[in-house]
Formats: sequence, structure tokens, C-alpha cells
Amino acid sequence: MDKTIITPWEVKGNVDYNKLISEFGVSKIDESLMKQIEKHAGEIHHFLRRNIFFAHRDLKFFFDEYEKGNAFMYTGCGPSGPIHMGHATVWMFTKWLQDKLGLDLWFQFTDDEKFLFKDKSMDEIQKWLYENMLDVIALGFDPKKTHFLIDTKHAGIMYPEAIKVAKKITFSTVKSAFGFTNENNLGTIFFTSMQAVPAFLPNIIAGKKMACLIPHAIDQDPHFRVTRDVLPKLGHYKPASIQSMFLPGLGGMKEDGKLSSSTGEAIYLTDDKKTVRKKIMKYAFSGGQATLEEHRKKGGNPDIDVSYQWLRFFEEDDNKLKKIYEDYKSGKLLSGELKQILVDKINAFLKQHQKNREKAKDKLDQFIFKQ
Amino acid sequence: MDKTIITPWEVKGNVDYNKLISEFGVSKIDESLMKQIEKHAGEIHHFLRRNIFFAHRDLKFFFDEYEKGNAFMYTGCGPSGPIHMGHATVWMFTKWLQDKLGLDLWFQFTDDEKFLFKDKSMDEIQKWLYENMLDVIALGFDPKKTHFLIDTKHAGIMYPEAIKVAKKITFSTVKSAFGFTNENNLGTIFFTSMQAVPAFLPNIIAGKKMACLIPHAIDQDPHFRVTRDVLPKLGHYKPASIQSMFLPGLGGMKEDGKLSSSTGEAIYLTDDKKTVRKKIMKYAFSGGQATLEEHRKKGGNPDIDVSYQWLRFFEEDDNKLKKIYEDYKSGKLLSGELKQILVDKINAFLKQHQKNREKAKDKLDQFIFKQ
Repeated sequence: MDKTIITPWEVKGNVDYNKLISEFGVSKIDESLMKQIEKHAGEIHHFLRRNIFFAHRDLKFFFDEYEKGNAFMYTGCGPSGPIHMGHATVWMFTKWLQDKLGLDLWFQFTDDEKFLFKDKSMDEIQKWLYENMLDVIALGFDPKKTHFLIDTKHAGIMYPEAIKVAKKITFSTVKSAFGFTNENNLGTIFFTSMQAVPAFLPNIIAGKKMACLIPHAIDQDPHFRVTRDVLPKLGHYKPASIQSMFLPGLGGMKEDGKLSSSTGEAIYLTDDKKTVRKKIMKYAFSGGQATLEEHRKKGGNPDIDVSYQWLRFFEEDDNKLKKIYEDYKSGKLLSGELKQILVDKINAFLKQHQKNREKAKDKLDQFIFKQ
Repeated sequence: MDKTIITPWEVKGNVDYNKLISEFGVSKIDESLMKQIEKHAGEIHHFLRRNIFFAHRDLKFFFDEYEKGNAFMYTGCGPSGPIHMGHATVWMFTKWLQDKLGLDLWFQFTDDEKFLFKDKSMDEIQKWLYENMLDVIALGFDPKKTHFLIDTKHAGIMYPEAIKVAKKITFSTVKSAFGFTNENNLGTIFFTSMQAVPAFLPNIIAGKKMACLIPHAIDQDPHFRVTRDVLPKLGHYKPASIQSMFLPGLGGMKEDGKLSSSTGEAIYLTDDKKTVRKKIMKYAFSGGQATLEEHRKKGGNPDIDVSYQWLRFFEEDDNKLKKIYEDYKSGKLLSGELKQILVDKINAFLKQHQKNREKAKDKLDQFIFKQ
């Protein structure tokens, strides 16, 4: 009945990731790639072990170029509201890649996009831009290797490059890639050209042709499909990508493909510990049984339990996670107890994050790219 | 049979200016407006006396604001080739307005537009940008009151304003205003938003709401119709405009609406005197009779003679022009003699212009707007 919709601006319905792989034409991350990553990183991130980053394009090509010292990363943030845990997962993984591989990262803040697609003023978007930058910095990126590109602030270098991209894309293409109509505003139509720029701007600045890796959630793939078509025509490599599943919404995986900040059921990086506890206790969809007796007897279902699914993202220790899985399934662990494990995990993370976030205010200037 | 087409990028067929006035919804410049201009300028430019600048939007409103010291001008140039006499006419008039009214002028160079609409490289466009800026400066604008805005160079301040315009315009609107199709590239679709910016950027820089006057050839009207719809929604006045007819192509007024640089029949501001002579003698459509005898007997037709029509633009002295008209009509003045009058007029102008053009190279920096 429900149609699944996945665009950069809307994710609806039940997401079948295997179907996405064939529909989007991306590839699974196979054993030999895992080994290549492990060779350079010295370990395999639990997001990879657990298939949370599950798909890619041209990742082998990227690592081959990386081995020649010829590579950078690019990811981004659309500033229109507070950052939730779903956003943070992609960036946590990106930070890990930066730490382990020593890669330069170009971090795009698409304030133009959010202004153009949302019914919000530029003042409001600029407020969120500032707040979101603090969260990104607080995640621990290396200020020497991380370069913030803000679309309106850096338009002076970005627009002249974006029009080179724009010249190679017709309205027909964005109509079919993004489902645009004749009633789309002109800025939304142009925007994908701006989103393409960080995938090759570092080449222009450095004066050499490098490979680009874009870690991103799968919903952004339509942008980069278009980007991949265009960039070789401008003398650059097609950007590689490594793509994640969505962190499920607290309300349950069947309700919504990804954690939404509009439903009031997201956990924000600025939430205090009481709020986190309240949200998880109230909203986190449970795979447990109706009564304590029944739960002890039949056990819970971790595969649909959102707290367990979140722990797949945030509990790094495989043994701990396995024990939680088994205890919940056997009925030994109750739903309330499982929720409490998640509450403690998230609150420990947020306590540190919010400390870092205060310090980030003084570091902002180091991160903003100087033209 | 021939359909007349007038868009900012194409003018074809026989242009009926009276029809344009009703189709475009512009107004004729009436006696009371002429008087208001004369009051401030101390004279009436021959382009106004001769109906070459023939139409306007909101000109009375503009002069009312001008009287309160609350006004500026905006015009532009699309750099994709050498400047011809047709381009120069609009700017000559703009310079006259600046001299007489003491107005600040924002001069936009739409290098992005030409890159996006033409099959030319950005390098080629940048070469023409430089050459065209020299011609504009050579026409004598006041460096203290003239501010060059170059779309790619000033994108840092222009793009953030352009997206505010873009958010208010749909693809449907530009489809009908400019005849765009789904095969237009994304940059061409976005571009009218950039062309709108100089009509209100000075307000943002000065922090006050001023009236804007745009002197331009009538083919640019579709851009400013769209701009006029949007600007009040952003808190600015609708820009006023004063609009010129096209300088006819040398090949004749019935062949082509305006002087085209693609037919090889234009006179460029960089042409030497021999080239000017050759082009006029060879190409200028003549209203004369087939033989000398017949011409002496029946007389010529100045109304279709291109040399005479050009003198309406370039011979400022009404009495001299009247005498030429009468002598040609009576048969006293031969076609070759009429052409020679035009050759001398153009060459005298170009001799001075080309001297100014050499000096312009050192003045360039004074004209480019400093952000």
C-alpha cells in the first residue's frame, strides 16, 4: 500500500535496502574491500561490521588512489534545525575515516538548499548553520584537515564552479532524478550544481586530479548520481561514495525510513539527560511482550525493537551487543531494562559531546575555509 | 509569414515597436515626462527627441524618488564577443543620464549568462569580459559613481541575494517569460535571478530603500518583468526602466530586428577606419534609386536607408539631420555621399573611443566594485 519514497528531501515508507542496492545501482561492500579498509585503518569500524554502512560506489578505485596519496573526503550538513543522532552517525563514521586514514575532509553546509527548499527565513537558517557547525566540530574532526564550505559564504569560489556543472545538466535530468515539477523554484532546480562542487573544488585549489570519497546516507545518492555523470566531462574523476542506512526513528522502523526531526521523536545532540530518558522511555518502539510474565516466557524481538536497533549503532562492543541480543530474545532482559541501557549509552555520549560543543565556539574560525 | 521573436537571447523578424508597447505592457514616454527629464538634465537627449528611447516603466515614480535623492541606475553587458555600435547606444544614453543627473550606476557583466547560453569556454568569456570592460570605461563613465559587478567575480555577494529572488520564481514562470524548455540547462534556468540582483543590491549595501532605473534595449524587458514581480516581495521597489529601440543591422531593418554581431555586418568599437568604410559601403542597405539619373529625379527613401537611420542615432544636430533627410529625399544627396557622411561620423567617434580605450586599461581597477 505505502509507496516508498527516497529523495534527498523526503524519505517515506518501509525502506528495503536490498531493493535500493539494485534500484540505485550501488554495490555491496564485499570482503576484499573490507580487507583493503582494514589494511589502512588497522581495524574495521562497527558500522562496517554491522552493515550500517552497507553500500558504495567505486570504493576500490578510491582506495587505489588513496594509496598513491591522491585522495580527499567530502560530506555535508543541511542546516535547518537541531542535529539529531541520525545525522551524527554519518559524521562519526567520517571522523573515524579521517582519523584512521589521515584524509582531508571538505565539509559543506548547504544553507542555500535549506533556505530554498524550506519555508524558513535566511536569518533562521543562519542561526541553525552556527548551531550545526558547533555540533560538527564537537564530534572531533581535525581542524587542520577539515575545511568548512558554507554555500552562501563561499559562493565567491563555488558559484563559478557550480555553473560549469549546471551547464551539463538539463531540467529533464533533475525532473527525473529528484521528481521536480514546473512549480519548483529556480533555486531548487539549480541547487544540485552547488552540491556537486566540493567533489572537485579541492582539485582546483590543489591543481591536481584527486579521488573523492563521499560518506553519506543513502537518500543523498540521487545528487551524486547526477554529479558522477557530469564530473568526467569537466576533467575530474567520478566521486566514490560509501553509503549508510538510516538510523530508525524512535517510533519504529516500519513507520518511517529515517530518524525525522519533524515528528518530535528524534533525539538531538543538545538534549539534556532527562529529555533523552523521557523520549526513549515514551517513544522507543518495543519488541517486548505485553506482560512481564509473557516476556519472561516468550522473550522479546530485538529485530524490531528500536532500542536494540539503536544499540547496533551506538554500542561498539560486539560482545556486549551480542549479550543484549540474547538476553532480550530469551526474556531475561526486560524492555524497560533494554531502554535503560540505551539511555545510559546515549547520555554518556551526549555528556561528552555537549562539553566539546561548548569548546567548539572558540574553534569555529579554524574550521572555516579561507579563500 | 515571419514570426517576430523577441527574447533576451534572440531577436528575429520585423520589429513593430507600437505592437511591442501593448504586448509588453510598457508605456510611451509622454510630454510631461520629457519635461521632468528636461528639468533635471537641462536638455533632452536626441535619443529621446527622436523616440529611440521610446518606452518606459514607472519613470515618473523614479524621478519623484530621484528628486528626494533616493535613486540609482543599473545597466549591463553580456560579454561574449566584441562590442558593436548597437550595444554602445544604450550605454551612451546611460552615461548621459549619469552626467546630467549625477546618478550612481551599477554596471553588471553577465559572464555567467554568456558561458551558460553559448557554446564558449569560460576562458573565452573572460577574455571578452576584459575587452568589453575597456569599451564601457572608454565611453566616459564616472569612475567614482560607476560600479562594475561581474557575476562570477562578485558571486560572493550576488549569489546569496540571487537565491532570495530564485525562491520566488517557478520554472513555469521562466518557461513562459523566456520560452525555456525541459532541455534548458540548470544555469540558464537560474540566471534571471542573478540578473535581478543589481536592481536591489545597492539598497542592501546602503541600508536604504531606493528607486532603480534600468536603461536597456527592449529585448531585456522579459527579465525585468519577472524582476518587477519579485522585488516588492523582498521589500524593494519595482525597478523602473527606460527602453530603446534596436540600432538596425547594416543589412536593413526588415531583415533583422537589431544589430547582430553574428552576421558579420556589425561595426565594432575596435574596427579601424578602413574596415568601417568598407562595411558601410558594402553592407549598408540603401534607400536610393537604381541609377544616378533616377535618384536625381525621384530622390531616395531615408525611412528605409540604413545609413540615414544610423545617423538618427549618431548625428546629434537636429538641423544637420533634417538637411540630410531633405537632401536625400529630394535626390540632391546621393547614396554614396550619404554613406560617406555616416563613415565620417562613425570614424570620428571611434578615433576618440579607441584613444580612450587605451587609457581605460589603467582605470579598470577603479571601476570594479570592492566588496
